[in-house]
Amino acid sequence: MKEISDLLLNRRTIRKYSSEIVSDALLNEIFAMGCRSSTTGNMQLYSIIVTRDIERKKELSPLHFNQKMITEAPVVLTFCADFNRFNKWCKLRKAEPGYDNFLSFITAAIDALLVAQTVSIAAESKGLGICYLGTTTYMAHKLIEVLKLPKGVVPVTTLTLGWPSEIPEQVDRLPLEAVIHNETYLDYTSESIDRYYNEKENREDSRKFVEENSAGTNNCASLAQVFTDVRYKKADNIHFSKILLQVLKDQGFMEE
Amino acid sequence: MKEISDLLLNRRTIRKYSSEIVSDALLNEIFAMGCRSSTTGNMQLYSIIVTRDIERKKELSPLHFNQKMITEAPVVLTFCADFNRFNKWCKLRKAEPGYDNFLSFITAAIDALLVAQTVSIAAESKGLGICYLGTTTYMAHKLIEVLKLPKGVVPVTTLTLGWPSEIPEQVDRLPLEAVIHNETYLDYTSESIDRYYNEKENREDSRKFVEENSAGTNNCASLAQVFTDVRYKKADNIHFSKILLQVLKDQGFMEE
Repeated sequence: MKEISDLLLNRRTIRKYSSEIVSDALLNEIFAMGCRSSTTGNMQLYSIIVTRDIERKKELSPLHFNQKMITEAPVVLTFCADFNRFNKWCKLRKAEPGYDNFLSFITAAIDALLVAQTVSIAAESKGLGICYLGTTTYMAHKLIEVLKLPKGVVPVTTLTLGWPSEIPEQVDRLPLEAVIHNETYLDYTSESIDRYYNEKENREDSRKFVEENSAGTNNCASLAQVFTDVRYKKADNIHFSKILLQVLKDQGFMEE
Repeated sequence: MKEISDLLLNRRTIRKYSSEIVSDALLNEIFAMGCRSSTTGNMQLYSIIVTRDIERKKELSPLHFNQKMITEAPVVLTFCADFNRFNKWCKLRKAEPGYDNFLSFITAAIDALLVAQTVSIAAESKGLGICYLGTTTYMAHKLIEVLKLPKGVVPVTTLTLGWPSEIPEQVDRLPLEAVIHNETYLDYTSESIDRYYNEKENREDSRKFVEENSAGTNNCASLAQVFTDVRYKKADNIHFSKILLQVLKDQGFMEE
């Protein structure tokens, strides 16, 4: 068995999977580990939706901008902030739940994300590969329809999971000192930004990334412009912010 | 070395720590593992603030409702959603960041929480014990002051960390089938709620918990009432929801 530090230090996101199935028994082993994660007041304010059905994966695919992992991975897991189950329990026990507000959404989202990350590590410890899909919060309103999520439930992240059929190069990370602050936040200067981003900006794969994203009408003069002008654009962020806030209202998390 | 499954399945939250120090070298090893976690578009939208200073821990203590772990743990880690560093980088590279909105906050919060959970597992793999403090999102406005967090940075969770001086009983969890849904969300009935919460409600520690929380003016007739009437009350949730939404505005995440 691998050392845990090897596992965590050498990990790669896996986007290509073999056709080999992931058994229910293995998935349950992984979930059992995931559900030992810390959870606020032991309330377990999350649910996990398991998608294996090919037709349903086809329905999910456009909601995740047709990223091919959705249809190619044997298992798709949607992690949801869930106060519905807890609220139902409270009401059945003559306790009046007061969890229809923003703080409660954040609390449940934290629970769901801690479980997602433990599930991810547990899966990797079994040799499986995973990929997170950030599209979940963009398309929460549509995921709610397809996965039939009731009020009190909001999807926050998605994992695709399967046996790796690739070992990609490990991607870069900023130096540790770029993200760790000692005692108080030391704000960044032009000089420290230059220093921390130097390696990333000068990597061969970053240069390729800029080229790839400069096709057509885009013309990116810097790596940063790939993010702001192509990948994570202001107009999209504003659009999806409105939708997500509406989802929180519709799912009952913005009462006063 | 322990099997990963043993580590994850047998974990306990640790609230009592020995006075033994946690070295910087060990902490950096743990952070190196944490920072390999998945992050949206490899943007690493988080910062970690390390608190060791006794005086600063005393300042933090009331912000975490005087939970004694803050002053008793050798290390306190505050995990923040952070777009400040990324925005500064973009601006220095003539790229106009469009991340002053709610979606971007959620994206950064997800990044921060995935790192927090990997740090937690990495620390436990080294024999350390951890405890999450949910008070972080309640008192984000005050933490921002003490930790000197600039615009674009919001604390989302806190870990206390140290060498365990206790091995508490492992707490209960709902059966797996209570939180896992196959293909679509199967909503709960009175019958399934009864079945899933049966073990929890009938445990000796739950009964003690109801007794302990029924002191003074509280009189809890059920475990659920401990949550709704004592521990996570509607009035508090509404109060802290307003503050947290104001924090998101103040930190620059609610522009349109």
